[in-house]
Amino acid sequence: MRLSEVPTPAAVIDLDRMQRNLERMSARAKTAGVDLRPHLKTAKSAEIASRAAAGHSGGLTVSTLAEAEYFAGHGFTDITYAVCVTPDKVARAERLVESGVDLRLITDSAAVAKTLATPPRARPLEVLVEIDSGEHRTGVSPESDQLLEIARLLHAGRGTELIGELTHGGHAYHSDSVDEVRTVAEQERQAVVGAADRLRGAGLPCPVVSAGSTPTAVHAPSFSGLTEIRPGVYMFFDLAQLGRGSCRVEDLALSVLSTVVSHRPENRRLLIDAGGLALSKDTSAASFVADAGYGWLVDAVTLERIGDLRVASADQEHGYVEGSSIPFDRLPIGSRVRVLPNHACMTAAAYGEYVVARGDEAVARWARVNGW
Amino acid sequence: MRLSEVPTPAAVIDLDRMQRNLERMSARAKTAGVDLRPHLKTAKSAEIASRAAAGHSGGLTVSTLAEAEYFAGHGFTDITYAVCVTPDKVARAERLVESGVDLRLITDSAAVAKTLATPPRARPLEVLVEIDSGEHRTGVSPESDQLLEIARLLHAGRGTELIGELTHGGHAYHSDSVDEVRTVAEQERQAVVGAADRLRGAGLPCPVVSAGSTPTAVHAPSFSGLTEIRPGVYMFFDLAQLGRGSCRVEDLALSVLSTVVSHRPENRRLLIDAGGLALSKDTSAASFVADAGYGWLVDAVTLERIGDLRVASADQEHGYVEGSSIPFDRLPIGSRVRVLPNHACMTAAAYGEYVVARGDEAVARWARVNGW
Repeated sequence: MRLSEVPTPAAVIDLDRMQRNLERMSARAKTAGVDLRPHLKTAKSAEIASRAAAGHSGGLTVSTLAEAEYFAGHGFTDITYAVCVTPDKVARAERLVESGVDLRLITDSAAVAKTLATPPRARPLEVLVEIDSGEHRTGVSPESDQLLEIARLLHAGRGTELIGELTHGGHAYHSDSVDEVRTVAEQERQAVVGAADRLRGAGLPCPVVSAGSTPTAVHAPSFSGLTEIRPGVYMFFDLAQLGRGSCRVEDLALSVLSTVVSHRPENRRLLIDAGGLALSKDTSAASFVADAGYGWLVDAVTLERIGDLRVASADQEHGYVEGSSIPFDRLPIGSRVRVLPNHACMTAAAYGEYVVARGDEAVARWARVNGW
Repeated sequence: MRLSEVPTPAAVIDLDRMQRNLERMSARAKTAGVDLRPHLKTAKSAEIASRAAAGHSGGLTVSTLAEAEYFAGHGFTDITYAVCVTPDKVARAERLVESGVDLRLITDSAAVAKTLATPPRARPLEVLVEIDSGEHRTGVSPESDQLLEIARLLHAGRGTELIGELTHGGHAYHSDSVDEVRTVAEQERQAVVGAADRLRGAGLPCPVVSAGSTPTAVHAPSFSGLTEIRPGVYMFFDLAQLGRGSCRVEDLALSVLSTVVSHRPENRRLLIDAGGLALSKDTSAASFVADAGYGWLVDAVTLERIGDLRVASADQEHGYVEGSSIPFDRLPIGSRVRVLPNHACMTAAAYGEYVVARGDEAVARWARVNGW
């Protein structure tokens, strides 16, 4: 099937671009001697997980228990759920463990650690302590008393096994300077490696030392002391990552195939059928790409940008395309364009499947898991 | 099941609030003597469609062909697809018509009208001309030559039947003044009624005269000359509608049930498991509700706002809750809150089903359709 026959809007993966992105990150991890535990929060697809994890331990990272269950159902048995677990989610996690999945949980709370640790289990829950390496989202400070308190609870508990530490250098997202991202990557590494040293110094085990957002995984000067990295959006990249210098424009592997719906020459715009639901309302790329809007308009076949066209605003099912000059003749109503999205994690979530393309040919459809 | 046992994040409908919203709009349409053709773009649920259309013609409005197919599959046979149709979508529309659905399409293009009109059909496609009543999204000017050109093509064509006109007073969204919304509502009404008069004056049929966004449907001083209104988000309302004066806080029927995930007293925030995917990244309510953020935090049972707490920022799976004072003791890790969302249409789209609640009790689960 040609892309021109695919109903729109549709989430399209350029297979060759994605494969190059996967191979580049894989090579980087291998060269550094760390495991690549790809984060599937962006792609949420078993087909992509297999390709991303190829040549590594096979371990995955996920952001929801729905993802963990989905990937377990597709034969993945080593999964880190990288959002602090809460007591209400434990029974569901236990069911996965009992079904044979090596599910790794994280916590930054002594109260939660105690709840996890107390009931004896035939297969203890494997838990990592989350370290705050500067993002200030979740995690404990690597110098804090809490770190050792939580670690001791998990180690001593009959229901848990302390398996190490995990951090997320998400503050790398605040910069478009490669030097600053490198600095954050070093902070991230030193925080979690230093915290691991504290655990070991206290006689506690710390076999896993896990770090890595996409920007820090791309730019880190060193992975020394880490055992694994967990980048996610690098599989597709997006304008937000382009603006931060994590990739080149020719690495952008996800696009939204869309149809021109209406011409408004008197308002210097045209409308496409990819609006706020098809693209997401995320505008985070605007921090570093002034004209990102809700995405850049590119040719449906070549993926070359069409002038400086962008989706300047978005209603639920309408994208408002603007630019310094709109080639209405080239883009009649019913013609196809693609949109390089602002933030791939948010855009992809609107779709139950990907159309996988090589050039203009749709070569496969890959399901993805949504929801929680 | 109590709401406290429902896995989070979850989209919760307060049944009594929604039912009151439905009844109020239904009564308003009946009093004015117009049909209510509820727009299901927000709710996307057959259970809600039945309740919203009760007592009226049973006609629905939808924003995607996936919705049209879903509602047809649930026994709805009179459906207006209120986004300008493009040639690539015609075959799918024809299949619905051939299956017995009275599917109404819209267009603002003579080229598309010609494409629709040309092939003879046993059951012609029913088409409305879209009128731009001031929103400047899609539609032709009511005074334009195009209006009559398109109408004549549709009327003369062997493949189409001209059934009237439709407009969307979406520019009502730019104001929080009830007086201004009333002015827009009058513009909207006069534009489409005036355009209908032009058609009739030219000897063309115009049985359907359709208008109505939620703000204009709520505040219009007159529906005279209209045959139907098509509000949608009024079923749930949201902070964006509250800010525009379309509803009261006690009308907000959709909320996101969420769990407290982490405490950050040193950063004056706590984290919940409803982030950008669970709430959407839409921030349109901020135009008129300065502290809307990604939603207001309310008590999981009473739906009373907790201080001035709001989701101030959102990562994919983390909502950052901020406010002048955070009651950490009241909100331990693992406790439940609800979030009144910024924009219900965008938030609901993240979910495959609703949890329907009366007070703290989950009384039903209703599926919804997503995608295209």
